[in-house]
This record gives sequence, C-alpha cells and structure tokens, in this order.
Amino acid sequence: MGQYVDLDRKVIKLGKMVVRMCTVAGSGHPSSALSILHLSAALMYRVMRYDPKNPWNTGADRLVLSEGHAVPAVYACYCDLGGVAGKQDSPRALVFDDCLTLRESASMLDGHPNPAQGFPFFDAATGSLGQGVSVAAGLACAARVHGGDQQFYVIVGDGESREGQIYEALDFIIDHKLTAVRVIFNANGQAQSDYVSPQQSAEGLTKKLEAFGFDVKVIDGHNFDEIIPALTAPAADKPVAIVAKTVKGWGVNEFLRSNYHGKPLEESQVAQALADLDAKGAELGGNDADDVAKLTTPSPREPAGYAEVSAGTFEEACAYTGNEKSFAAKKMSTRKAYGVALAALGRDRRVTAMDGDVKNSTFAEYFFKKHPGRYFEARIAEQNMLSAGAGLAAGGTIPFVSSFAKFIVRGYDQIEMAAIGEANLKISGSHAGISLAADGPSQMAITDLAFFRSMAHAKRTDGAPVCRFFQPSDAVSAFKLTELMANVEGMCYMRTARPDVPFIYDENEEFTVGGYKHLIDGEDLAIVTSGYMVHVAMKAAQLIEERSGLRVSLIDAYSMPLATDEILQIGDDCRGQILVVEDNYIGGMVDEIALAAAASDMGVMVHPLYLKKMPKSAKTPEEVMAQVGLTAEDIAATAQRIFDMSE
Amino acid sequence: MGQYVDLDRKVIKLGKMVVRMCTVAGSGHPSSALSILHLSAALMYRVMRYDPKNPWNTGADRLVLSEGHAVPAVYACYCDLGGVAGKQDSPRALVFDDCLTLRESASMLDGHPNPAQGFPFFDAATGSLGQGVSVAAGLACAARVHGGDQQFYVIVGDGESREGQIYEALDFIIDHKLTAVRVIFNANGQAQSDYVSPQQSAEGLTKKLEAFGFDVKVIDGHNFDEIIPALTAPAADKPVAIVAKTVKGWGVNEFLRSNYHGKPLEESQVAQALADLDAKGAELGGNDADDVAKLTTPSPREPAGYAEVSAGTFEEACAYTGNEKSFAAKKMSTRKAYGVALAALGRDRRVTAMDGDVKNSTFAEYFFKKHPGRYFEARIAEQNMLSAGAGLAAGGTIPFVSSFAKFIVRGYDQIEMAAIGEANLKISGSHAGISLAADGPSQMAITDLAFFRSMAHAKRTDGAPVCRFFQPSDAVSAFKLTELMANVEGMCYMRTARPDVPFIYDENEEFTVGGYKHLIDGEDLAIVTSGYMVHVAMKAAQLIEERSGLRVSLIDAYSMPLATDEILQIGDDCRGQILVVEDNYIGGMVDEIALAAAASDMGVMVHPLYLKKMPKSAKTPEEVMAQVGLTAEDIAATAQRIFDMSE
Repeated sequence: MGQYVDLDRKVIKLGKMVVRMCTVAGSGHPSSALSILHLSAALMYRVMRYDPKNPWNTGADRLVLSEGHAVPAVYACYCDLGGVAGKQDSPRALVFDDCLTLRESASMLDGHPNPAQGFPFFDAATGSLGQGVSVAAGLACAARVHGGDQQFYVIVGDGESREGQIYEALDFIIDHKLTAVRVIFNANGQAQSDYVSPQQSAEGLTKKLEAFGFDVKVIDGHNFDEIIPALTAPAADKPVAIVAKTVKGWGVNEFLRSNYHGKPLEESQVAQALADLDAKGAELGGNDADDVAKLTTPSPREPAGYAEVSAGTFEEACAYTGNEKSFAAKKMSTRKAYGVALAALGRDRRVTAMDGDVKNSTFAEYFFKKHPGRYFEARIAEQNMLSAGAGLAAGGTIPFVSSFAKFIVRGYDQIEMAAIGEANLKISGSHAGISLAADGPSQMAITDLAFFRSMAHAKRTDGAPVCRFFQPSDAVSAFKLTELMANVEGMCYMRTARPDVPFIYDENEEFTVGGYKHLIDGEDLAIVTSGYMVHVAMKAAQLIEERSGLRVSLIDAYSMPLATDEILQIGDDCRGQILVVEDNYIGGMVDEIALAAAASDMGVMVHPLYLKKMPKSAKTPEEVMAQVGLTAEDIAATAQRIFDMSE
Repeated sequence: MGQYVDLDRKVIKLGKMVVRMCTVAGSGHPSSALSILHLSAALMYRVMRYDPKNPWNTGADRLVLSEGHAVPAVYACYCDLGGVAGKQDSPRALVFDDCLTLRESASMLDGHPNPAQGFPFFDAATGSLGQGVSVAAGLACAARVHGGDQQFYVIVGDGESREGQIYEALDFIIDHKLTAVRVIFNANGQAQSDYVSPQQSAEGLTKKLEAFGFDVKVIDGHNFDEIIPALTAPAADKPVAIVAKTVKGWGVNEFLRSNYHGKPLEESQVAQALADLDAKGAELGGNDADDVAKLTTPSPREPAGYAEVSAGTFEEACAYTGNEKSFAAKKMSTRKAYGVALAALGRDRRVTAMDGDVKNSTFAEYFFKKHPGRYFEARIAEQNMLSAGAGLAAGGTIPFVSSFAKFIVRGYDQIEMAAIGEANLKISGSHAGISLAADGPSQMAITDLAFFRSMAHAKRTDGAPVCRFFQPSDAVSAFKLTELMANVEGMCYMRTARPDVPFIYDENEEFTVGGYKHLIDGEDLAIVTSGYMVHVAMKAAQLIEERSGLRVSLIDAYSMPLATDEILQIGDDCRGQILVVEDNYIGGMVDEIALAAAASDMGVMVHPLYLKKMPKSAKTPEEVMAQVGLTAEDIAATAQRIFDMSE
C-alpha cells in the first residue's frame, strides 16, 4: 500500500460512478475511463493548481483530454469535487449524481469534452482523436505571451497516438521549448477494433518520444507513488512525456475478459462490477476518502479587458510594414494586405499569429518581424497549427493562423473541432481559387467556399454563426476585413488571392459582417461575385456595355452569411436576373444566392458561372480562367445569352 | 571521381535544363529540383526497372515524388530518356526540349506531378506535402495483392517531413512489413520560409526513423557511389529508409547565396548558372553521356481485364456474412449493409479494403474476416489511409476505404489530391449526420455533403464528375450503391448512418448514378430528402395526411449530381412547392435542389429544413432531432406553413 491510500480509496468511489453513469447513459466508454482514473484523480485532486469552483480562473493549470471518449473519468472527479459548470453568467456547482445525466440532451456532460455545451473545465472540444497535444501546446504559447507559469497536462490514448498530428505537436513543443506541457500517454494496449500495433506499445512510444527529444518517464498508471512524482518532476532542458502503463477496464473483471471498447455494462452486470471494485477497496481499508483534495488555487491573471482591436489606417499600416510604394500605386494583393493588417493589429498585445512555413507568401512575416514573441511558427504541419490556434484562443489571445488556403483543407477536422468548442480562431487561407495559376491544382483551394459556407449558416450556443466567411476583392477590403475579424467574437475564415490587383475601395470605406458592395448600379443584369473575380467581372461589365449598350449591376459579395434579401432586390430591379460568378467549385456564393432566390417568391432567376472542371497549371491567371470558362469574355458571353433569353 | 562518372556528367546536362525550364516558365522550384537531381537520375537511369516508352507497364517499379515541387528534375530525366506521356490512347514520346513547356496551359508537364494531365510516369498527384509515402505504401499493398516484386521509391523533402502523415505512413509500412517501399529523405536543410527545424535535420530524421523501426542509411545525396548502393541494398527484416544529405540549388552559385525557395533565376542570371554547371562538368571531363541509361524492363502483369464486379443478391450476401436474421426481419443499418456488400464484392480479387480502427463499427470487418490478404488495417490515421487508398487504386485494385464520416474529414486534402490524380477510390463515411446521437458532435459528420457535393459538379479530364456522392436510406440501397460504386470508374463517396432502420426497398430494386426514388406520389408538396431522414420524412408524411388530409410526394434523393430536372417537375406538379430536409449543414441536397430551381424559369419554390445549430449529445436520434428542429413533427409543421402560404 503506497503513501496515497486516500487517493486509492477515492478511485474506488469514482470507478463505481464511471460504471454506473455509462450504464445509465446506455453508452460511453467506461473501460477507457477506468484506465485513466488514477491519472485523472492525481491531476484533479492533487497536482493541478486550479479551483473547481472557478473554472474560468485564467491563471489555473489546465487539463486537455485528447482521448475524449474517456471523459467519464474526468466527469466523476469534477462532480465529486463539486466543480462548477454552465455558462459564466449562469454557473452551477455540480454534485456527484450529476454524473448520471451523462449524454442526456439537457446535460452539460456531453458525450465528449465540450466547453461550449457548459463544461468550462475543458478549453477545447475533443473526441476526434490526436488533437489534444496541439491544443495544450497552443495554451502554453498563450501562457508564454501572458507571462504565466501555468502547467498544461494532456492525456493521449496509445491507439490515438497513431495520428500523425501527435508527432507534429511533439515537434512543435520541442521547437518552442514548451516545457509547460506534460504529455501523458495512456498505454493500455488496446484500441477500438484491436490491440494496438507494436508501434504504439509503451516500448514503441518510449523510443519515439526519446527520438523526438522528450525526457520520457515510464510509469505504472495505476500507482500514485509513480504517477505523482512523474507529473510533478521539473522539466529542465527537455519537456517531460509520461508513458503510463494502464489496464483498460481497471478494477472490473468483466472488462478484462476481452477488448471491451466503448460499451457500457448491461444493468444486470453492474452489481458484479461494483462488487469487484468494492473488493479492491476492502484491500485498501475502505472505499472513499472525502477530504482527499489538496489543491492550490492560483491567482487569476489580470483580465485583459475588452477594447476594440485597431489596425489604424491602411496608409499608416502600409508605412509601418514598408509598403508605402504599393499604397501610393494603389495596387497590392489581398494576401499582402492581410499581412499588413496583421502586423498593424499586432500592436495590440492580445493578438498572436501562426503560419505553416509560408509566412513569406501569406505575409504573416510582417507580424513575425514586428512581434516575434507572439508569433509561433508551425512549419509544414497544418493540423497542429489549427489545433494549437484553438489553444491560443482558449488561452485568451486573438490568434490569426495562415497558410495557403489549399493547405488549410488539411485541418478541416481540426477546424470543425475548434468550431464545436466555439474557439475564437481567425483563419486566413491565401492563394485561393485558381488565380495562382502556374503552380497548378495541388496548390489551389477550390472546395473551401463550400466547406466554410456550410458552417456559416449554423448557429453557436449564443446564436452567432459557427463560422463567418470573408473574401476581399482588393487590398483595402482585405485590410479592413482582417481588422473586422479581430473584433468579431468567434471563428472567421478569410480567403485571399495571389495576384496583385488595383485598389477598388477608398481607404475610408467600411465593411461589415454580412455586407456587400454595390460597385456598379445598372439595370439589365445583376452580377454577383467576390474576391479576384470582381476584377474579371469589372472587365466583363465594360465589355458588355461596349457591345450591347446594356448596363449590369456589379456586386462585390465579400461576406457570408450574406444579406441576400437585398441582393435579391437588386436582382429584381435588373430584369429579375442574377449571374453569380466564382472561381471555385459549387457550394459557395452561387448557392448562397440561389437558395435565397429559390426560397423567395420574387421569381428572380440565378445563372451560375463557376469552376466546372478540374483546372491545371497555366502561366497566367487569364490562361487558367480560359481553361475553365471564367474569363471576362466568358462572363460577357453568358450575360449576352441571359439578355437574349430575357428579352 | 567515382565509378559513375557518366551519370555525373549526365547530371550537368539535366541541371542546365532544370535552370532553363524554370526561367522560361517564370516559376517552378529549380533549387529544390537541383537538390534531388542525383537521386532522380540514379533512380531513373539505373535503379528502377521500368520502360520509359511504356509508363503503363503494370509490372514496373514506380517513383512517387512526395516533394512535388521538385518535379523539374524528374521532367528533365524523363524527357531526356524520351519517355512517353499523354493519355494511353494517344501517347507521345517526349523530347528533351518538351521541358521548356513546363507549366504552360497546353503542356503535359504540370506545375506539380499530375498523372491526370498527361504524365503517367506518376501514379498520384502530389504537391500538397506529406502524402507520397502513403501513396507508395498503398502501391506496395496493391503489388502484394497482385504478387508482384516491384519496388516503390518515394522522395520526401526534409521540411515536408514535418507533416504528421509521414509518421502515419512509416508506422503503416512497419505494421505491414512493406519492405518494397524505399523512403528517401532529401535533407537539404531548407524549407520555404526558413532553414528546417533541428527536428527535421538529417540527424533528427535519422533518430526518428530508427525509433520507428527502419534500417536507416545516411548518404551524400550528390554522390552516386553512395546513392546507388543505398537504393539497391536489400531490405531484410526492416524496410530501408535513406537520409540523403543534399544541397539546395546544387551546382549553381546564385542559389547557394541564401535560402532560394521556389524562385527561378532571372533571364540575365541564366548564363552564369549554366557556366557554373559547365565548370563542374569540365572537372568531370565532359557535360553529358548520352548512353547512360541502363534500364531493365520488367514484364507487365497480366491485365486483370474488365468485368463487372458483382456483390450477388442481398439475401445471399447477408447469408455469406451471417446476417440471415436481419435480412428476414428486414431491418439493418446502412453502415452494416455497406459491410455486407463489401465482403460480397471482395469475392472478386480486384477489390481491396482499408479501415481506420473502426472496422467493427463500419462493418468493414466482414471483408477483413473473409479476405484478410486484401484488407489493410490503417489504424487511427485517416490521412495515411486515404492516400494509401489512392495508391491501392493506382496499383490496379478497387479500394474501399472506410471510417466514421467525421474522421474522413481529416483526410479532405488527401481526398482532393486523389481527385486531382483521378484516383479510382471508393470512400465510405459511417455514422454520418446527427442520428448517431449519444456520442455528440465530435463524432458527427455535418459538413460532408457540402464538401463532396462541391466536387460532384466539376468534371474530370474524361468528362465524368470529379466525385460521385451517394447517401442510401436503407440497407437494400446501401448494398446496391456499394456495388454500383465498385463498377463506376472514379472517386465515389457514400454516407451511411448508425441506426438500424427497416428496409424500404425490395431487394430487386435498381439504383443508378444521379438517380432518386419517388416513394410517395402526392400532389400538395414535394419533400426531398435522403439517408436516415427519409425515415423521419415518411413519418412526417403520415402525420401530414392524418392532420390535413393533404398528400405529399416523398423523394429519396440518394445521389449527387442529381437528376434535378425531374425533381423540379415533381415539385411543379405539387403546387410548385419543394421542402428539402437534411440532417447536416447547408451546402448539400438543399442547395442541389435550390440551385436547379433558381436557374430554371418554372417558378418552383424551395423550402430548406436543415441543421441550423450545432448539435450536442442526446440519448436517441429523436432527441437530437428535437434539439435542432428536424423531427417528424417539425417537418409536418413546416409543411403546414407551406400549405397555409400556398393556399
């Protein structure tokens, strides 16, 4: 019997709750939860400096449960501790029996960790595997920005540790010397459908972690005498990783008979399971020790306070970043204007930035040069970057994360998880659409509008869109929309393009969420487009007028969800005809307008002109537009067909 | 001077071409290409057993260029060898000066490796980094199925080796003992925006590779005396990995001055660069050796020949997989029916399968049990699984790859790359939508319709859709659509659901690409839906008739791109009103119908009922539907509002 017999006894009580709550829920992963019960209890009753009564304490240590399905263990500890849950304006202290609401529609104890649904002990939604180490790394970056001394614990499954993102996160931790992160591998030897590969055995993981540069401590994950020293050992030169050998279904004989993943016990099996645990408890001289928690509560950080984040004027920001000449020439790419805005916003210490080894292409390098202490280079590892960005947001910074839009696709699942957790993450995808031309389709983002629009029409718990979408057509709007993103709570995605383009807007122009600009006010056809295609459509409008004498309305629809009622009205005033043009696959602006039209009784017709074939390399944007039928000539010809039809 | 002076001289000629072709193209990555020039030349002139005149030889060794941007090196070698390019029905032997068409709109030499655009030397499109090792592993799996002795070489950048997918692929290679794959790391020490991290240095990579279980050979990547033995050393117990130390911009002094990524020389700099290379050539006693290729051409594999792949009858397939009872009870989940079909299809030796540690949930385990030699467990690493699936397709099998639809999101970039390469990949995402309920949003796929639909409306080079989408409502349709996917050339995605549902269709029912089923023929409102929601809508139809006496038409739209003209006609016959119902975010079937309606002049109105808020856990599908307003009652109430409006 070790020196932590009180904790050992506590685990018996918690284990019984894990068994009961999953059986009552009719699902859950009790065997996984039992395997991390000692680790969770060690952290939550002893090691972590935090206050269960105030999960919003900004100075507290944090736990990220990457192996999200094992969450009943954490729920049991937190409810036993009377931890507080709910939204910050309506908090409630949980009681132990709250565990029995697990997975109910009205419960704050969701199936997997989910701060947005009322469990603020967690910083990030987890459950899609392999993302927690990155989140913890992002939290540690935020703590560094704030000058905090917090520790960040993350529990990872061994089966889960097959996800490549884990290795991206390990590299990132070493690169940035994030010794405040302690990664704990729960090596129970079993995954869902099988035992884990030898590659993910405790031995396999240990070898890998050492090769990646970690100080590895291999322990018995059910022995507090080994757990607590490993969790509290100081990290000197190297960050510490713990490989904890555990038993899946610890303490319950039924779970030990085979690989018992994700299934609760039948009601009829519960009594025996509780008896198994009681028998273990009897060996310890009792089943519970109610005064077991010995927690230190850290002082909360001074709240940063709310104030608008300002990028200043575009002219001044151009000067700040050495772009006076481009400003004077009134020509700049939207990606560069993003970089200018980012650097200017960075004068506010709440703003942080990341990029994936393309900062010289996305122009995140302006931020890096001006504010190196708040820039975290992610290198060529987008999944880690996006989850770490969610961690930076949870840590109270305003993170902007950039790469080529095509490589952002790599992190769509990480973005979805950040959306579930309602992370205040700002994402910028550059070189989007097909105007980048020469590099070809492997570098072209052409599904991103469909993906992000789908999230723009669903609501978060506070009623805001799950994600807001922006696509600027010129440098002024890119600059202003970047600033807008910083000031809008919640996830935003901005799509920028490679080519230098002339300014369309005066630098005093205002841009809003859901807004658009009515660039040309004609009466014969409304053309709706955004981004680089606004420039192509402007040429088309000229061609149309020259050839037919007819005048189109041209709308720069830079935002989704879009104020479609007003767009339809403009279309109605233009013979009831709208032509929507975009340089990506379907599912974006075309559908935004078409759905509004089809759902109204105005009878406005929508003509879609979008990317209908896979593009390939070409030397210029014009040539690649020609491949796929999206040149100014193509737009003008389509307009002519519409005129002929609507004559 | 080593024993390969003829190859050394050849490299001078090739290097000069690399410099020239990138300058003529005005882009490209000459410095990266120069760093792999010796590696490429060793493989393409000596080591690989292949015939440049017949890139379709199914028995040949293959090269995957994971570091796709370095492709000018391969183009130079292949054109010098007079390699054949183009489509198989219109092949053309290239000549050296074809290199100068690099990146032109009409050129087969795309900016990054792209077999679909006419460069069949490659099996897969690359350029989005970190995917090539997985593709090579998939090719090696296919060769194992075919009993071939081919070798698969893959060149990976050191900066690129930050991508976690690489480590997923390394684990996969070890798990499956794929010693036919030789992974070559091009360690030139530089990435795009910076030098590589020490984590990706030659030393860092070597440590990691050894920890992962590889026999690592560290060589000078510009010395054939070291390159050729390393490439040809037999792999005994362990697969061999090569860490080749190289120089970015080898041979051209201008490139050596700083990190010179992705930029060609100016025209004015070319003469000096060629002189630099000539000077190196002079040391070797000459600049070229035209007869340097010493290639072995392997016998092609017997072509499998085309024949329809049959799954037999559903009843018989149910018996084959032990599901007689479910068949008799006429109740089964669509995910299980997928598994039944897959196992039955697997009796054809061309069919292969992969799953990511959820084969007992997706029911890919039926295939695993019946055909273990053609099943490749990918464990919890979806990115590698999807790219390896593309490799299995390129290797001439018909691969079905499955996981939870939510985890398939993880591989959307890999899916896009497979789409660019026109891979014949079949993807199945299970537990889609919100009907899985209890596990909560981290396990729910709700953006997948938007993503896959966007690719369903773009065309491949042969005019077929880039991807076809299917969502079956019952087990019969899931079975038939799985069989259909096997018989349709090109990428397909099928979305299945968790709950057991009653059969809707007779087992002789036929299902087609683009098809739908008109389940109820009413006249007051057309309800279009698919998947699990068909069952909810059937209940709603009953409620509607009971309450109002009105009869709806109910359409099971199981396929996209959909025959929307016919759907609109049905809507027109139903008072011109269509209600579209789906349990996912916008961008899917709602938009499919709405765009068709808005683009027509029929004046059909579309009413969308979709997932407008982030769901959370609930114990039953009904409860989660209630959270988000998608119950049968909700549908009936919406229908009533439409009736009231259209009265």
